[in-house]
Amino acid sequence: MVSVGVIGSGAWGTTLALLLARKGIMTTIWDHRPERAVEMQRIRENSIFLPGIHFPETIRVTSDIVDAVDQKDLLLLVTPSQKLRENLRVLTPYLSPKTILVNASKGIEISSLERMTEVIAEELPASRQRIAALSGPNLSREVAEGKPTAAVVAANVPEVAREAQNIINCNTFRVYTSNDVIGVELGGALKNIIAIGAGFNDGLGYGENAKAAIITRGLAEISRLGVAAGANPLTFAGLAGMGDLVATCASPLSRNQQLGRRLASGEKLTDILQSTHSVAEGVSTTQAALRLAERYHVEMPIARVLGQILFEGLDPRKAVPELMMRDPKGELEGSF
Amino acid sequence: MVSVGVIGSGAWGTTLALLLARKGIMTTIWDHRPERAVEMQRIRENSIFLPGIHFPETIRVTSDIVDAVDQKDLLLLVTPSQKLRENLRVLTPYLSPKTILVNASKGIEISSLERMTEVIAEELPASRQRIAALSGPNLSREVAEGKPTAAVVAANVPEVAREAQNIINCNTFRVYTSNDVIGVELGGALKNIIAIGAGFNDGLGYGENAKAAIITRGLAEISRLGVAAGANPLTFAGLAGMGDLVATCASPLSRNQQLGRRLASGEKLTDILQSTHSVAEGVSTTQAALRLAERYHVEMPIARVLGQILFEGLDPRKAVPELMMRDPKGELEGSF
Repeated sequence: MVSVGVIGSGAWGTTLALLLARKGIMTTIWDHRPERAVEMQRIRENSIFLPGIHFPETIRVTSDIVDAVDQKDLLLLVTPSQKLRENLRVLTPYLSPKTILVNASKGIEISSLERMTEVIAEELPASRQRIAALSGPNLSREVAEGKPTAAVVAANVPEVAREAQNIINCNTFRVYTSNDVIGVELGGALKNIIAIGAGFNDGLGYGENAKAAIITRGLAEISRLGVAAGANPLTFAGLAGMGDLVATCASPLSRNQQLGRRLASGEKLTDILQSTHSVAEGVSTTQAALRLAERYHVEMPIARVLGQILFEGLDPRKAVPELMMRDPKGELEGSF
Repeated sequence: MVSVGVIGSGAWGTTLALLLARKGIMTTIWDHRPERAVEMQRIRENSIFLPGIHFPETIRVTSDIVDAVDQKDLLLLVTPSQKLRENLRVLTPYLSPKTILVNASKGIEISSLERMTEVIAEELPASRQRIAALSGPNLSREVAEGKPTAAVVAANVPEVAREAQNIINCNTFRVYTSNDVIGVELGGALKNIIAIGAGFNDGLGYGENAKAAIITRGLAEISRLGVAAGANPLTFAGLAGMGDLVATCASPLSRNQQLGRRLASGEKLTDILQSTHSVAEGVSTTQAALRLAERYHVEMPIARVLGQILFEGLDPRKAVPELMMRDPKGELEGSF
């Protein structure tokens, strides 16, 4: 009997738990706050992030880390990116070296500039050969409602990707394998930067043409950084690159887009961040990407302008033309 | 004093005329129906395709082909793709070999499987070195309203691309040059196939995740055909490839998407085609692409399934999973 632990009870962690539990897999969600765990276990839903979606019998919610980690075939790590390391330290003592660890958070640790699976490998060296990353165009509400979705699971060890695929794949959530962990993780993380730009665009009423230009130029600069960091360029043309970027920028519900729209309307970053439950990963990802761009000597004009808006008070209204356009010249000059 | 003729008075032809006329360029729109030409000239708007958008003084509308073609620096060809050849035959006698010809229609001639600039070069051999193609994420209503937009003009002769760029480029419509005529034209034409698929997806309520998967897999198959036909693969990652595809699939107003949605709701293709003013280019483009795929031995799974829906009565409900997914396997296997 397959059993899975889910570390993190946000919208995406809960959604993945629902998918697995609906397949009949015994799934344990961990929330470090006992009162939240007890409430979800009792009312059989995540009333904050997925109200109205009922938990099947096969889901248990616990605040006991041993319960969530011990004897699991697979552990899904779905915490805010900046909290992953401290969560790993909590669960390390109870982890079997046989358990596959699948990261499903989309971010970069700002203090180390490491991808999530790099943080995992560093904290859990005994599990190095059992690590994978899951990413793709996966708006959680749609997945939770059973709408058809595709995703990618990447691992350095092909059998680990296939084992994770076997456990997670189902009719409505089709999982493909990849060996490009770097590309799959960076695609998922960096797209949040461009989503903030798309949010500015919508907030300023600039329409779909301008947004498509931002998305197109955005994917080019994400790919540039990814390839410099060792990723396969084709990954960015796939579900975990372009696919995720397009879905995120199409959804008015995306947190990073909402952030962009609110900034465009004149709200301050600190006020917006204080007013919301959920974490807009794009803010820290923009900081991390700018430092990585410097390390790898890569140009990221969109991330640079966003950095100026987010951290230096540049007016978005002045920035959007820069996000979508440069001086008229050959389109491909300097872009790869 | 620069002067431009616009052959075709649909939404896109009229929009391009507005852009140029607002820059102060003397712009003559040609409509072959005298009563339509007289009406537009009198009421100063295109009441069918762009109601409410006023023509500046610098626009004239005529049904006299000599007026529209003689002594022009640049001629924009914006006719339905299947009508281009007959329109060229009408204007040939009045064309100066100095005039630059810019095609702005997005389609493939079904009888010859030729791109629009191939048709032009065949019909107007004296103008062979003066031909360009304009394409990009250009929903016409947004462009007409002055929302910021980017586009690409491609020509085999670099100075022709630059001359066309100089004439068309303006603050809100930023034009980049390219030397990849094949890629720019095929990107614009083939994206309409994927737009029909995106319309099915919306019509069936499948959401943004599934749509992003269709768009991503769609761009891969467009690129495959384009590269086999001689295009630069980077063009498909640019404004005329991914950019146009993303904008078209984001817009509920796109004719090809509307077609997909109506087919998804059970309407018959012939009834839909009879009920609309405008031409959904994607229907003939799907036919043409399937024949080109055969010629170049390229796999186009989305075009193939759409062909079955459009011409063989396959139920869209059964097809969408096939449009976005294949059997779970490595994501990049067989895709490039």
